[in-house]
Amino acid sequence: MAFTFALTHTDGAARAGVVTTPHGVIETPAFMPVGTQGAVKALTPALLEEAGAQVILGNTYHLWLRPGAQLIARRGGLHRFNGWPRAILTDSGGFQVFSLAERRTIDDDGVSFRSHLDGSAHRLTPEVAVDIQACLGSDIAMVLDECPPHPSPKEVLARSLALTTRWADRCRRRLEELRDGARIDGLAPTNPGQVQFGIVQGGVFPDLRRESAEALVALDFAGYAIGGLSVGEPNEVMYEVVGGVAPVLPPAKPRYLMGVGTPADLVEAVARGIDMFDCVMPTRNARNGQLFTRVGPLNIKNARFAEDDAPPDPECGCYTCRHFSRAYLRHLYVAGEITGSILNSVHNVAFYLDTMRRIRHAISLGTFAPFHRAFLRDLDQRAFAS
Amino acid sequence: MAFTFALTHTDGAARAGVVTTPHGVIETPAFMPVGTQGAVKALTPALLEEAGAQVILGNTYHLWLRPGAQLIARRGGLHRFNGWPRAILTDSGGFQVFSLAERRTIDDDGVSFRSHLDGSAHRLTPEVAVDIQACLGSDIAMVLDECPPHPSPKEVLARSLALTTRWADRCRRRLEELRDGARIDGLAPTNPGQVQFGIVQGGVFPDLRRESAEALVALDFAGYAIGGLSVGEPNEVMYEVVGGVAPVLPPAKPRYLMGVGTPADLVEAVARGIDMFDCVMPTRNARNGQLFTRVGPLNIKNARFAEDDAPPDPECGCYTCRHFSRAYLRHLYVAGEITGSILNSVHNVAFYLDTMRRIRHAISLGTFAPFHRAFLRDLDQRAFAS
Repeated sequence: MAFTFALTHTDGAARAGVVTTPHGVIETPAFMPVGTQGAVKALTPALLEEAGAQVILGNTYHLWLRPGAQLIARRGGLHRFNGWPRAILTDSGGFQVFSLAERRTIDDDGVSFRSHLDGSAHRLTPEVAVDIQACLGSDIAMVLDECPPHPSPKEVLARSLALTTRWADRCRRRLEELRDGARIDGLAPTNPGQVQFGIVQGGVFPDLRRESAEALVALDFAGYAIGGLSVGEPNEVMYEVVGGVAPVLPPAKPRYLMGVGTPADLVEAVARGIDMFDCVMPTRNARNGQLFTRVGPLNIKNARFAEDDAPPDPECGCYTCRHFSRAYLRHLYVAGEITGSILNSVHNVAFYLDTMRRIRHAISLGTFAPFHRAFLRDLDQRAFAS
Repeated sequence: MAFTFALTHTDGAARAGVVTTPHGVIETPAFMPVGTQGAVKALTPALLEEAGAQVILGNTYHLWLRPGAQLIARRGGLHRFNGWPRAILTDSGGFQVFSLAERRTIDDDGVSFRSHLDGSAHRLTPEVAVDIQACLGSDIAMVLDECPPHPSPKEVLARSLALTTRWADRCRRRLEELRDGARIDGLAPTNPGQVQFGIVQGGVFPDLRRESAEALVALDFAGYAIGGLSVGEPNEVMYEVVGGVAPVLPPAKPRYLMGVGTPADLVEAVARGIDMFDCVMPTRNARNGQLFTRVGPLNIKNARFAEDDAPPDPECGCYTCRHFSRAYLRHLYVAGEITGSILNSVHNVAFYLDTMRRIRHAISLGTFAPFHRAFLRDLDQRAFAS
């Protein structure tokens, strides 16, 4: 099945739609649980499907270094390797190289670095990023972008942006070569229907963001991501940047806000026209004992839950909330039981996916604005900070 | 539902039957996955039910120290606390006190010790062991036994045995008091249908084992366990002891071999008249990357599995074997992913429970002897040792 995006409803700037991929549909606005090393931590594909996930994210940097992109290609691609039958989006590896790898040096052609696993030397270029993702066979691949640290001076961001735009062009060309039959060390891409998204950079500067967006739109990607946010800037600044960039992007293409965020962030970004999200927060926080609810998160390790027979979220219908109490989940957390990580992850991922369903439902009814207000009112910001 | 045991088939010394408990039936010979701290590690109740588990074991020592027996009683008992709707057997805490606790001192009345968690002082007596298990509300409770180290001189074992028999009598009396309405710090037992098994001790000495069995049979327990085995003695010695004890036990009561064992141990013990088993081996070994198969276990971390597209066990129908390759499971193990522990545990528990199903089937057909021979022939003992 070819990649398509169809808008089904708009409500103010908020949009609902359907992305079609070679591995099934993604209803948008969509949240993508993160499977960094090919598995969403403490979950199985069956548990993810039960929670309603339609797409997960895989990290190119991690899978490239271990077990290796070509090993996965020889297995038939990431979908066959990890048993996830639905859509997969892979990032380009850039963000991890800039944040995880050791001793990295950037030049115009690419970036040289040493692996955080064993110190071995590697080189990532736009073409290599495309080739790795072609081996993985994700349904949506991302272009390689430079990710300067936040905050960076405007002139640094402007130079970085120019580089990112040139790299986006090279990614586009490499994908076309592969579509025209080019091979990767003799291997064919494992997903002929794979498409590529561009990534808008430019920090917190509206003019740079606009310049980046316009340059990428000229390259005609299948979708557009907004990168370089949720890296330490205030929430309000992030919302402003998103609100400024979205209108510059073509309405007929999906818009993906990378690495974001809290439940409130998702609602705020949808209100500004975003269609897709990914974040480690639901799974990472689950393993740390933080459970999301409509009135804010609760820290299950807190002694006040020791004899609390209520489910984590009385309004949630997930497996965890149907069968287990806060008292039991607290015991599992305190006792260091893996089963606690599983049950907490099941709930948090279900909470995020339910939030997206509620968002889509409100947009389809034309009631997103009152939903947005009620959602923020329900969130007890004090509980959130606890 | 009252506790009952009905033999359905015998085949030589091997027996097939059905135990009925207040929380459903247990087809025997049965294997009980171990949920030390109230959860079978890296699994959920749903995954255990999918694998066909009918009974799990809970550890009195661990649950008593954390989160506390009375806390669990206030939640309505262990079944309500941990969401496991089927049968539960609890041990007495004795084995853990003798092997885990710090600075323990035994006297005729009981054993004083310090917790391995925080060094706090506690005292376990036969009556306390019964009361804790009454709070937990397991379907089958075990009497408190003394567990001398292996090897111990015969005179030490004889003295220990006399103590264990006196403790068994006190456990029996305390259970009757509770049935007659006694309360535990004001709390009622959470499972009025709970029954008690005695534990045969006596080390590797046939005359001591016989003496122990006869003394316990006179006390008329609902079932009988064989304790103190699989503690370092050679397999053949364990099989001999089991073969000597089983015929002394009443045929109409279930027989439980505690803490055993490998798949071969299970088959050998069934051949000598055992009905129930528990062992941490399937779950612990899963987390260490050892997967059981009919031809012996495989160590998934081995580099030779890096590109092996076969499922862990091509003859297994579990979720893991239906969806995942050795190559993927090796990657998850090497990458330290919790998902690997889940998938490996799903397989190993399914393998153990399937083995019990095959055993029951063979007994019901009267073909246990050829099954037994074929089972041992299939096991590649060299692979097992690897």
